[in-house]
Amino acid sequence: MSLLPFDPPRRLLLGPGPSDCHPRVLRAMSAPLLGHLDPAFTGLMNQLQDMLRQAYRTKNPLTMAISATGMAGMECCLVNLLEEGDKIVVCAAGHFGQRMIEVAGRARAVVTALQAPWGSVFDLNVIRETLGKVRPKVLGIVHAETSTGARQPLEELGKLCKEFDTLLVVDAVTSLGCIELELDRFGIDAVYSCTQKGLSCPPGLSPISFSEKAADVLRTRKSPVQSWYLDLTLLMKYWGQDRFYHHTAPITMNYALHEGLRIVLEEGMENRWKRHKLHHEALKAGLSELGLAYATEASAILPQLNAILIPSGLEDLPVRKAMLEDFGIEIGAGLGDFKGKIWRIGLMGYNCRKDIVFTVLGALGSVLKRQGWKKDPGAALAAADKFYQGSGASA
Amino acid sequence: MSLLPFDPPRRLLLGPGPSDCHPRVLRAMSAPLLGHLDPAFTGLMNQLQDMLRQAYRTKNPLTMAISATGMAGMECCLVNLLEEGDKIVVCAAGHFGQRMIEVAGRARAVVTALQAPWGSVFDLNVIRETLGKVRPKVLGIVHAETSTGARQPLEELGKLCKEFDTLLVVDAVTSLGCIELELDRFGIDAVYSCTQKGLSCPPGLSPISFSEKAADVLRTRKSPVQSWYLDLTLLMKYWGQDRFYHHTAPITMNYALHEGLRIVLEEGMENRWKRHKLHHEALKAGLSELGLAYATEASAILPQLNAILIPSGLEDLPVRKAMLEDFGIEIGAGLGDFKGKIWRIGLMGYNCRKDIVFTVLGALGSVLKRQGWKKDPGAALAAADKFYQGSGASA
Repeated sequence: MSLLPFDPPRRLLLGPGPSDCHPRVLRAMSAPLLGHLDPAFTGLMNQLQDMLRQAYRTKNPLTMAISATGMAGMECCLVNLLEEGDKIVVCAAGHFGQRMIEVAGRARAVVTALQAPWGSVFDLNVIRETLGKVRPKVLGIVHAETSTGARQPLEELGKLCKEFDTLLVVDAVTSLGCIELELDRFGIDAVYSCTQKGLSCPPGLSPISFSEKAADVLRTRKSPVQSWYLDLTLLMKYWGQDRFYHHTAPITMNYALHEGLRIVLEEGMENRWKRHKLHHEALKAGLSELGLAYATEASAILPQLNAILIPSGLEDLPVRKAMLEDFGIEIGAGLGDFKGKIWRIGLMGYNCRKDIVFTVLGALGSVLKRQGWKKDPGAALAAADKFYQGSGASA
Repeated sequence: MSLLPFDPPRRLLLGPGPSDCHPRVLRAMSAPLLGHLDPAFTGLMNQLQDMLRQAYRTKNPLTMAISATGMAGMECCLVNLLEEGDKIVVCAAGHFGQRMIEVAGRARAVVTALQAPWGSVFDLNVIRETLGKVRPKVLGIVHAETSTGARQPLEELGKLCKEFDTLLVVDAVTSLGCIELELDRFGIDAVYSCTQKGLSCPPGLSPISFSEKAADVLRTRKSPVQSWYLDLTLLMKYWGQDRFYHHTAPITMNYALHEGLRIVLEEGMENRWKRHKLHHEALKAGLSELGLAYATEASAILPQLNAILIPSGLEDLPVRKAMLEDFGIEIGAGLGDFKGKIWRIGLMGYNCRKDIVFTVLGALGSVLKRQGWKKDPGAALAAADKFYQGSGASA
């Protein structure tokens, strides 16, 4: 066994996440530890809650970071809101919707799966019909489906759920910090996200938020939450004024999230959303010159995650391998229905920049050309450049 | 809301954990991220498994780090091995034994609690009797009870469990890297630990290991594991050769664990165990001069966690507050039955050193003196010094 230090190779992470950390976040993590009940650390926790409320656009008191990755956030929302036999409708048009079905089933809920083709989004009327038929306690839906690059419109969904007295649970793993998300305005009852995408931190925490209505459901549960580690009735007492010891928080990851959120709020949410849209448009202009089309319904394309159909005549693996090995650039493969059929190019948080748009277009164009593809990388760069000039935006 | 950077105050963490990170670990965490399916990262995972096997003294293939803190490791072991209605005996003589009872109950197991006074350990004959009566699928026990500073002897327990065809599940949160722990020799079937104590990393991962017998129980479960996030039947496929995507691993925490384990194995397990014993003995000699006695059964005192009775005439909070605010030293308070009755002084991993023994004796002795205590700090330092000279050990 080798005892050499681990020295990671140079990478530019342009897949579905993790995306690269902001350098300020990397520096924040080298600070010495504090105890998890130290007044200085509990002060940090308060600041994190405030900043998360600003990022999520909510006044929810129950807003905090779960001490595990985004998928634990999904489990946390579902096992806390659902009890055995409760009804949930899950809208699934991709891998992460499917996963919600799986996790809700393990919480012993009665699950109605509303399916749609991968790459599409759900029509409000279809959801309305299902809510009327099933009358579920919870509706679960993915805001930014990482496996398909599709953005589910949420603006009207909260109102609809209120009509049916249904709690709206939203997967915001790939949306927080990248696209418009406003919990209170949209009427979202529970949300979970991650740290390694729009927030440009390492993976390791899951920011969640529960509305007052969802918190009431928690408080009046008949049975204990099946997961002790994810039990919000206990976690509230650690994050609340009691500071009741529950588990040892991942101190360093909380330092990272603090710095990550500072950077997000310094930029401002609207500016951040605009920046993601801007560089996505430039990338799209370049990809179009390369003859590459999106796998996602045109009106629903996510700026931060570009799901590109692999054209016939090109192979998946050799292209991704060359990108990784020759250029140090990671792009994502397809999952599930899209396995072998798409590439996923993420432009998230710190990595959503003009120089990176040019880097990925140049590298991908050159790799495709080597594989016999007839399109010219130079034309792709010119299209992006032209877009930026026309947009009037500075880098 | 303040947007100032977070600058943690200087602390020396001598409580029950987290203990200070090794500086090499802090440096390792500033490396840029890799993707969770990058060959360089999966190579790191393989090395982590090898090193964990060495640290745990096992050949168990199913050895890995769970992507959450130590308490998620407890939940992982229990929800994977237990199905609804399965019988478990839990030995509880402290807070973490109690917690195992709670977590096993939420896994819908039938729990028999074997209780003993806080600060004591269990006699093999008492356990034998209970196993004979209950015939449980699982016996759960804490190796190093963090709330009482007691070491449960484990050498013979594996054999006993085998007689009754019972799986032995051990909480090694405070023992790994500090005291003798040999999974294969002791006959342990499942174990969980943490990263922030004996391994001198930040909290954030839980190293676990399952014997082949325990892995067989997993493979033949009748129902799915209730936690999707902690489901080892899925996690095995991510940590195994399939590299099947499950969740996004906390990349940076895995860098930290890699460096932490390198340091542990460079020193060697036996040397590490000896070092913890050495500095504990020096601390004990000094504490004795200060007139402070242990709360733990004498034969069971843990070297890495010194649970000291607060003598009558001294108050808990003012002493801990002065240690923290005047000296920047965190020592631990009592929990549960020991709330307000003990202090807990941890000498773990990187923090288990001669200079730290002198630092804590000098500071504690001085704080106590200020509170009206008649013992002389100088005598405590002299006793520790004399012990070191007599031990023949270098610093």
